[in-house]
Amino acid sequence: MLIGSNDPRFQNKIPLNPFGENKMSTNRRDFLKLAGAAAAAITSTAAAHAGVPASSVAKFDDEYDVVIIGSGFAGMACALKAGQAGKKVLILEKMPTVGGNSAICGGNVACPVNPVQAAQGIKDSKELFIADCLKDGLGINYPNLLGTIADRCNDTIKMVVDCGCEFVPNKMLFEAGHSVPRSYEIKAGTGSGYIIPMHNELKKLPNVKIMTRAKFDDFILDENGRVVGVTYRKGYRFDSKLQSDDIENKSGRPATVKAKNGVMLAAGGFSRDIFFRQAQDPRVVPTTDSTNQPGATAGVLIKALGIGAQPVQLCWLQFLPYCNPREKGFGVSVNFTNHACMDLGLVVDRKTGKRFMDEHAGRKIKSDALFKVIGTDENYPIAICDDAIVKAINPSFVKLPLEMGTVKKFDTLEQLADAFGIPKQALLDEVAKFNGYVKANDDKDFHRILTFNKGLDVSKAPFYGIEVSPKIHHTMGGVMINENAEVISANTHKPIPGLYAGGEVAGGVHGASRLGTVAVIDALTFGMIAGENFAKMQ
Amino acid sequence: MLIGSNDPRFQNKIPLNPFGENKMSTNRRDFLKLAGAAAAAITSTAAAHAGVPASSVAKFDDEYDVVIIGSGFAGMACALKAGQAGKKVLILEKMPTVGGNSAICGGNVACPVNPVQAAQGIKDSKELFIADCLKDGLGINYPNLLGTIADRCNDTIKMVVDCGCEFVPNKMLFEAGHSVPRSYEIKAGTGSGYIIPMHNELKKLPNVKIMTRAKFDDFILDENGRVVGVTYRKGYRFDSKLQSDDIENKSGRPATVKAKNGVMLAAGGFSRDIFFRQAQDPRVVPTTDSTNQPGATAGVLIKALGIGAQPVQLCWLQFLPYCNPREKGFGVSVNFTNHACMDLGLVVDRKTGKRFMDEHAGRKIKSDALFKVIGTDENYPIAICDDAIVKAINPSFVKLPLEMGTVKKFDTLEQLADAFGIPKQALLDEVAKFNGYVKANDDKDFHRILTFNKGLDVSKAPFYGIEVSPKIHHTMGGVMINENAEVISANTHKPIPGLYAGGEVAGGVHGASRLGTVAVIDALTFGMIAGENFAKMQ
Repeated sequence: MLIGSNDPRFQNKIPLNPFGENKMSTNRRDFLKLAGAAAAAITSTAAAHAGVPASSVAKFDDEYDVVIIGSGFAGMACALKAGQAGKKVLILEKMPTVGGNSAICGGNVACPVNPVQAAQGIKDSKELFIADCLKDGLGINYPNLLGTIADRCNDTIKMVVDCGCEFVPNKMLFEAGHSVPRSYEIKAGTGSGYIIPMHNELKKLPNVKIMTRAKFDDFILDENGRVVGVTYRKGYRFDSKLQSDDIENKSGRPATVKAKNGVMLAAGGFSRDIFFRQAQDPRVVPTTDSTNQPGATAGVLIKALGIGAQPVQLCWLQFLPYCNPREKGFGVSVNFTNHACMDLGLVVDRKTGKRFMDEHAGRKIKSDALFKVIGTDENYPIAICDDAIVKAINPSFVKLPLEMGTVKKFDTLEQLADAFGIPKQALLDEVAKFNGYVKANDDKDFHRILTFNKGLDVSKAPFYGIEVSPKIHHTMGGVMINENAEVISANTHKPIPGLYAGGEVAGGVHGASRLGTVAVIDALTFGMIAGENFAKMQ
Repeated sequence: MLIGSNDPRFQNKIPLNPFGENKMSTNRRDFLKLAGAAAAAITSTAAAHAGVPASSVAKFDDEYDVVIIGSGFAGMACALKAGQAGKKVLILEKMPTVGGNSAICGGNVACPVNPVQAAQGIKDSKELFIADCLKDGLGINYPNLLGTIADRCNDTIKMVVDCGCEFVPNKMLFEAGHSVPRSYEIKAGTGSGYIIPMHNELKKLPNVKIMTRAKFDDFILDENGRVVGVTYRKGYRFDSKLQSDDIENKSGRPATVKAKNGVMLAAGGFSRDIFFRQAQDPRVVPTTDSTNQPGATAGVLIKALGIGAQPVQLCWLQFLPYCNPREKGFGVSVNFTNHACMDLGLVVDRKTGKRFMDEHAGRKIKSDALFKVIGTDENYPIAICDDAIVKAINPSFVKLPLEMGTVKKFDTLEQLADAFGIPKQALLDEVAKFNGYVKANDDKDFHRILTFNKGLDVSKAPFYGIEVSPKIHHTMGGVMINENAEVISANTHKPIPGLYAGGEVAGGVHGASRLGTVAVIDALTFGMIAGENFAKMQ
């Protein structure tokens, strides 16, 4: 066991600051003991490598044209395009419900150079989109993949709208790190706003089957190294109490399925994989909370590396800077903290009452700044906005957090200061200064883009306050893909025949840190492209 | 082909700034076309995965106790310890000569808390060593591995001294990024000062065989996933004209060898692997020069991932900030620029004549700062020192660069300024200011530790100047190992039975960026530990 089954820190509590000195060292020592000579209690007879030879499969239990691992944005988009072209498609989803992280995410979606922007006179371009992504990505993103997204995003939006997805009409969100408003706002307020209609469309296609509780195990390869099918288990029961479900969970009945045209990896990222994520950054301990659903593990990625997929930028882990430390996981407060307080309001260090960052910068910049302030004594910053701001945003963003009590409402800023232990006058001065910046459209302290506030400042009662803490959210790296969503082999530098990937399991689009709303367009677009490729095959 | 065989940029010229905007975009587009739908000219029938089942090997051509891949510091240290204990050891070295990068590196070696420090009253500690490494490593190093190095380093030094390695007596180098002087200086001035004596010791052991031109191909695994041998090719002729020797080179005669106690990976890093390195950072184009010998490729790493080794921090590529753009590869100037100019002298932007960084900071900090100044018009900074400094350092550091003409000598600073196009008065002012800082032991501009200058400043003719440009030097990431040098599996979180690794092919010791002289102690120590483990086996 990683830390010790009795260790209270392993019970989901308020997440520890992974960068905290005193908490970190103990956890890190304990973590690293796992991999040490003292044998772990976990037993496994799994062979160390991947890839089952097709010659060893006497008879496939089933045959499809396309087998897709995962039922989030990328998986469903692929199934849609392939299925609508008449392909026989099987989606293997290991959890009991479809949608993965896609179903629970914020759901808004970037689309550079779209008609709503044009109608509002917002000037955008493919180059500006790529430059924005490269900035938070620290320059290491793959521009060709970003270019593909920019080229196809309007087709992607059409695909989801044709399924019945509904966006707030004529509205473009100005998302953190982007230079201009370029993101559609999903009416539903979560990714379920795509998953439900897409799932309904897929259910109409008799040639598309979605199997839940179906756990991918390995690739089946022919003598030329082509992926011709997969082994998996039906009736799998994911167990979030296990430290490593991928390794320890032996439930389910084994089966094989042939994939005539190929296999699509749409298995998401590994933010919940406590071993694989901590291997990249030992400070991310098992108790570090994540926004992800528990199934976000590295099993598929590991097997893909096992058959030679080129690893890309696996080290980069993203923390979402909009989370609340008082609720577990993604919670209900993210959209409020993001769109009310960080887009329009402000965030202060509760010890000083002062701002400490550009609240509209990219996620890495903000998470790094937040962790510095949180330090080792859980000094969670306070995100603040007012009544006018709350009225300006999607009402669904404030409803639940108010009910849950993560967001608190106050008649005056003084009362807010009292409740959170912020020095009163310092806060009043800082808010006044901020309001001055909004009026002048000039953030002298942090150079935040204030243009799109349209004069909204923090001045009208009631006032709202919420604590902020980053949680691990997205793993930028993954397998290398090309513009056709083909997985590239480290052994040959060419595509692994029969293997495709898109979404968070692939790497290179986002570089070191991804911008908000770009993962949605990424996963949907490369899923769509993979599906289109399958549709063209015999 | 990556860029086009006719492309003059692919002939080793002055290295391009990988972060230069205009040069970068073309190269990056070309690079990414390789992995695109337009098929590359490289043909390969290699299967996509790794791991040959032992059941398919009718009869092994040979049998040893230990098979070691690579003959640098880690490989030779492992062979020494295992061989001296009577084990039958085979080293497979793919190049025509032994030593790899180890033979050509700077060669000085860190050893926290050693007798020479004690004799000189230098206070050091394991904790300080770990903290220093964590600082340049951006906090993501594995402290247990650093602790192992600190615990065993004196044994490591004894091992190499017993072979006949000679250090400059009673001298401790104060290496960049370290808080105190803690590094032995190798008399020979390069890593050959270890490789030659260690090789001589190994040649005395009849039970140790070193086979050059022997190219590891794959692991042989038994039904329990234990590594029981390797396949390789004898008579391999590495071809540095190929874009990917690992993929394209089919020379040599296949053979198999059983490894009764296990296999040690000591294959080094991938700084010369233009595909694998660029996968982690697209800005590192094929023409980006490296300090490494041409054999530093990712082939062994890829095969290890193929049998399930856990990848650790593969994204982190280090540039060595002491290189010269006028010579190829590591060249002859590194030690001069490092120990004369950066340790004791200063570095200026030739456009302004001013310093722009702490010349004694860690490599990442300095490389990032240098690249910023170099920009897109090859504005190579000038590193400067004087006669007293040159006389204070190892004479072998200045001899060759003067002969080669990378270092130039001048009677006055004014002449130096003229030769390099530096504004004269600005340079004189800056040097005077620097000398004042040395005198006061207080670098007011960049907070460099000046204590160990012992008053040496830049004031006595003749004066020396040399251009500086970083080159890709070390790949921090690799396979996960524990304190026993066992490789950890991503599939089981436990050691892969029979598989060991140490040195640059392993990851976690150095985090995001390694300190100088720590790679030497890292590779020697984990090689030693692996060898000790083999020695204990039946």
